Amino acid sequence: MERMRAIRKMKPGKGMELTETGILKPDYGEVLVNVKACSLCGTDIHIYNWAPPWDTRIKPPRTTGHEVCGDVVEVGGGVKGLQEGDFVSAESHIACNACYQCKMGNLHICRDIKFFGVDIDGTWAEYVVMPEQNAWKNPKDMKPEIATLQESLGNSVYTVSEAGVFGKTVSVFGLGPTGLFAIGLAKAGGASRIMAVGGTELHLKLAKKMGADVLINRHNEDAVKRIMEETDGIGADVLLEMAGSQAAIEQGLKSLKATGKACLLGLPPQKVTVDWSKDIVLKDITIRAIYGRLMFKTWDQTSKLLLSKRIDIEPVITHRLKLEEWEKGIEAAASGQAGKVVMFP
Amino acid sequence: MERMRAIRKMKPGKGMELTETGILKPDYGEVLVNVKACSLCGTDIHIYNWAPPWDTRIKPPRTTGHEVCGDVVEVGGGVKGLQEGDFVSAESHIACNACYQCKMGNLHICRDIKFFGVDIDGTWAEYVVMPEQNAWKNPKDMKPEIATLQESLGNSVYTVSEAGVFGKTVSVFGLGPTGLFAIGLAKAGGASRIMAVGGTELHLKLAKKMGADVLINRHNEDAVKRIMEETDGIGADVLLEMAGSQAAIEQGLKSLKATGKACLLGLPPQKVTVDWSKDIVLKDITIRAIYGRLMFKTWDQTSKLLLSKRIDIEPVITHRLKLEEWEKGIEAAASGQAGKVVMFP
Amino acid sequence: MERMRAIRKMKPGKGMELTETGILKPDYGEVLVNVKACSLCGTDIHIYNWAPPWDTRIKPPRTTGHEVCGDVVEVGGGVKGLQEGDFVSAESHIACNACYQCKMGNLHICRDIKFFGVDIDGTWAEYVVMPEQNAWKNPKDMKPEIATLQESLGNSVYTVSEAGVFGKTVSVFGLGPTGLFAIGLAKAGGASRIMAVGGTELHLKLAKKMGADVLINRHNEDAVKRIMEETDGIGADVLLEMAGSQAAIEQGLKSLKATGKACLLGLPPQKVTVDWSKDIVLKDITIRAIYGRLMFKTWDQTSKLLLSKRIDIEPVITHRLKLEEWEKGIEAAASGQAGKVVMFP
Amino acid sequence: MERMRAIRKMKPGKGMELTETGILKPDYGEVLVNVKACSLCGTDIHIYNWAPPWDTRIKPPRTTGHEVCGDVVEVGGGVKGLQEGDFVSAESHIACNACYQCKMGNLHICRDIKFFGVDIDGTWAEYVVMPEQNAWKNPKDMKPEIATLQESLGNSVYTVSEAGVFGKTVSVFGLGPTGLFAIGLAKAGGASRIMAVGGTELHLKLAKKMGADVLINRHNEDAVKRIMEETDGIGADVLLEMAGSQAAIEQGLKSLKATGKACLLGLPPQKVTVDWSKDIVLKDITIRAIYGRLMFKTWDQTSKLLLSKRIDIEPVITHRLKLEEWEKGIEAAASGQAGKVVMFP
Repeated sequence: MERMRAIRKMKPGKGMELTETGILKPDYGEVLVNVKACSLCGTDIHIYNWAPPWDTRIKPPRTTGHEVCGDVVEVGGGVKGLQEGDFVSAESHIACNACYQCKMGNLHICRDIKFFGVDIDGTWAEYVVMPEQNAWKNPKDMKPEIATLQESLGNSVYTVSEAGVFGKTVSVFGLGPTGLFAIGLAKAGGASRIMAVGGTELHLKLAKKMGADVLINRHNEDAVKRIMEETDGIGADVLLEMAGSQAAIEQGLKSLKATGKACLLGLPPQKVTVDWSKDIVLKDITIRAIYGRLMFKTWDQTSKLLLSKRIDIEPVITHRLKLEEWEKGIEAAASGQAGKVVMFP
Repeated sequence: MERMRAIRKMKPGKGMELTETGILKPDYGEVLVNVKACSLCGTDIHIYNWAPPWDTRIKPPRTTGHEVCGDVVEVGGGVKGLQEGDFVSAESHIACNACYQCKMGNLHICRDIKFFGVDIDGTWAEYVVMPEQNAWKNPKDMKPEIATLQESLGNSVYTVSEAGVFGKTVSVFGLGPTGLFAIGLAKAGGASRIMAVGGTELHLKLAKKMGADVLINRHNEDAVKRIMEETDGIGADVLLEMAGSQAAIEQGLKSLKATGKACLLGLPPQKVTVDWSKDIVLKDITIRAIYGRLMFKTWDQTSKLLLSKRIDIEPVITHRLKLEEWEKGIEAAASGQAGKVVMFP
Repeated sequence: MERMRAIRKMKPGKGMELTETGILKPDYGEVLVNVKACSLCGTDIHIYNWAPPWDTRIKPPRTTGHEVCGDVVEVGGGVKGLQEGDFVSAESHIACNACYQCKMGNLHICRDIKFFGVDIDGTWAEYVVMPEQNAWKNPKDMKPEIATLQESLGNSVYTVSEAGVFGKTVSVFGLGPTGLFAIGLAKAGGASRIMAVGGTELHLKLAKKMGADVLINRHNEDAVKRIMEETDGIGADVLLEMAGSQAAIEQGLKSLKATGKACLLGLPPQKVTVDWSKDIVLKDITIRAIYGRLMFKTWDQTSKLLLSKRIDIEPVITHRLKLEEWEKGIEAAASGQAGKVVMFP
Repeated sequence: MERMRAIRKMKPGKGMELTETGILKPDYGEVLVNVKACSLCGTDIHIYNWAPPWDTRIKPPRTTGHEVCGDVVEVGGGVKGLQEGDFVSAESHIACNACYQCKMGNLHICRDIKFFGVDIDGTWAEYVVMPEQNAWKNPKDMKPEIATLQESLGNSVYTVSEAGVFGKTVSVFGLGPTGLFAIGLAKAGGASRIMAVGGTELHLKLAKKMGADVLINRHNEDAVKRIMEETDGIGADVLLEMAGSQAAIEQGLKSLKATGKACLLGLPPQKVTVDWSKDIVLKDITIRAIYGRLMFKTWDQTSKLLLSKRIDIEPVITHRLKLEEWEKGIEAAASGQAGKVVMFP
């Protein structure tokens, strides 16, 4: 078995290591990909910190990471649509194709899902094996740092697409990468006024770059009051909740207009308490909870938006690192001093 | 001014009185209706008890009640579509037709709404004045006890219609009148399995009469466990939340399948705490909060369902009273020992 | 290679033959099914008659038929969700899983579709091989004559489900099996008034059995006039076009209300001319063209509707035949003197 | 009665006249508006030419025109939301508020509609009377030439909004003003590739200005072939049919992808023949016919898009004329040598 460098969780507990491990062979229906770029998502920080539910789900040793792009270098049996040399990005949810949800076409909600870097070896490595089904073919000249971010961008594309922002006022709570992407996408989708609520100057600066019309620092200002003012007392037509905090959810719902639409992507670590009657039921609103992205309708939209330059996500990339500089990336993201971190093996 | 009998809140605090008051004259665009039947809804109990927010909103003396049907006996200026002798039911939300939400066609969410029995005199009386816009014309031979229940039934029609139950498994939490109506409507709409969760034997008996396939007494049984069993571990395709309690909302969401749809009509009196990540966001579900009913798309559906006998709501009527027996109705409803209470002036 | 009896198109031109052929072996991801019942659809008549486009697409010899149910008797490699003894029905569209439409989750619209009895050997035989993906597992006690009709019923379930008939008036043009199924489904789904337009007394009689409220014989009566009368001059809320004829399409659109919804399943053999401005654009309507059924959301709904007895399709089955009586079935269907024809090998 | 100048159809037959007529007084619920700008739409050309159905519907003498903006100068009784000095645009469809469609909230489809310049006196005049309900309040500093175009732009906003263009490829057939607006709106809404099909160099030049990515002159090129090439053989995700011709409708449907969405605004003067099975039913597509615009959800979106500068419609205005130069406008529009023509009284 040939060897490669990879960032791996070698034992239970906080931390990871850059180490050597064997290169897997592609099985029936799988391909082997030589990684050109991989990137970091909030989940990776939780895994680094060995937070629940990851501490009980991951069985070390395990190569980490799930965002990636690279070139197909070997093709397993039964592969129909890919060949050596194809440049692909990966959807990180590996569906079983046999459970009830897969049968229903909801691959992203597969009841027996396998997730890169968690249930099988991940993408922060020189090589990664994936099912053909999970590979999304890119044009050869797409920049690797953009190609690896398509999965993450896809979360926001699914959110904004379900929201329907055309000619509407939009509040965005939470200015991490998915929130920043959502701002750019809402702008691309014809939102008439984008009100961004965040907590750090870096995030608000990036929000402005991505197209926010109104910047609200939640430490200095009452977000609900401001959004109501910006919308003539009516409330935002659309809420994009990307923060996943008690405060953001409450404020987001309170500043949403009656008959409005809320899309939820943020994952609060604790239970959330809301004024259910006043802020939800009596307002006759629609709430759309978003998980992952559609396989692969969202990928189609995402790549079309990128390739047509309707959205430019480069401002969100704050770190471009070598694989061996991975700890810098973890630190920056954990401290909130980063947009997206991309690594090149 | 001619006189009539009416049930009125004569002063702040608990209670109402059957008393005499003047018969109003219809203004421009209004009609005077001779009441044939009026009925009782949960809100009326709260008003009787002088509970918030009604204690600060109602300015006594005020004729109470908002569900009603009767004959048009006088027509104001500018009325185009009604004439004396027409048999009508009333939508209780009197829209201003000028605010932002009215302009958007959302009359039921009017920002300057007037509500029968609260902001203007209500329907528990021999006569009631209403805008032409609020009158829905019935066939002459419709039973008054059915005609007065159309508004209340409309809540459930709007809920079930938004849910989309055709060929789907449905859980119904809360077996008050709107829950019982919802069961009958889900059955009429082709739900494949209706799982009713309630707390009293009367309610469960009525649920069975209305068409529930599975009866769950929440005092004796774990509703989540049972619903999961009844759906092969997948969860209900649709949740109709008509209880408005912490427990029902939690259990309803936990027993809803991933990618399912929840429709919320129940109004919890306190804030509600939910496992936002696990029970909402990660499940990729859609939540539709329902207020009132569409003016008048829902009325059109409701009357079509009734007139075609796709739904029979008679089993839900447990009390038929004279106006002077009104206190019996309040008592029965307050104690949970009633379905729908209808009064005939 | 073991032998079996099968109905086969042995050479180009009109006709088929009951003959012997080899039993195929299941390949990777496939299963072999022992047929318990198979059934006949309009397409089979066209294939029998060697009508376009089938005359250029089918390469004889070819086993015909595509509706089927039976027991799994052998399982190929890589099959995860099925085992010997499972009782299954088949979706007849064999998707490539690799083309653009498959990637989008639209398996039924696969750009490289293979169709039973056309591109690969079909189901009118003692045994049939199919991909695991195409097999839908039934409860063991489901009647074979019902199980084989699920695919065909699924067309109508998809149509009625997209239409949304709850509390709505519905016109159904065309009373072949899909139209008759649609009537039963519209009734199950809460349509308030079902107006059936057909051309033979047998079909109208079956329409009545399936739940139609209004029967219109197109030879004796002006369907548009009648539907307008039955809907107070407003038109039907929903049109289900299952006839696929110039007249039905024109009349269906003319008798559809403004803002109504038309669902189209009928396949006219010639081009169709319509008053595009008056009957479509100026009416602000929505038209949903339906092909096949969703794989497998529609199957889920279909089986739930059948198993819960919300729909009873037995009245539509007019012929139960042995495989060797197949010509009787073809004759009856071709002459319009049949509902559904089921054959038992 | 005070006098004003107005362009009027004085007698049946081709032609109009600039003449004097009395200024109407606002009735109950109406306002009098001093016109700041009015504009010309395709319908006006048909009325000028006395083409059907206008020749039988209009009873001269009648002031013509229906697009307009201006200042409220007098307010009738019962007006709640407007006062003297308000700057308003007008929705040209005057709904009865009493018919079935109005009750359903579909004011734009009112069964007893009155249309400016046709059923009542129109807007090509110094003053015009309109119901409060039809007036849409603008910010004081909105340019009159933009304000008067909101109704016309609204047609395209409704079309593009129903289409859902975010991250999708879009074909636009017909490059008159609504087609040109649609291009700008599709761009604003995140369409990834806008393919414009037109017949004159002026129109194609304007299409480019509005944001089209691909320009197709239907006289020189096979539009279907080109659109298929531009979409890798898959077809456009969305068709916006704004031409209303046999050729455009056929080609638009043929170049639409399976499962795509077609939105139809063009009004063909003759019947249209289509390959119903192949180009509609077998493709599993959705067709949305668009009439007018939603009162007033579309107005809300339209004004938000304009005020936020997500769309700039100035390039479409090719003529700015004095009222007395009205014939120049008619000529330019009739000959296809115009985008939008605005007149200032």
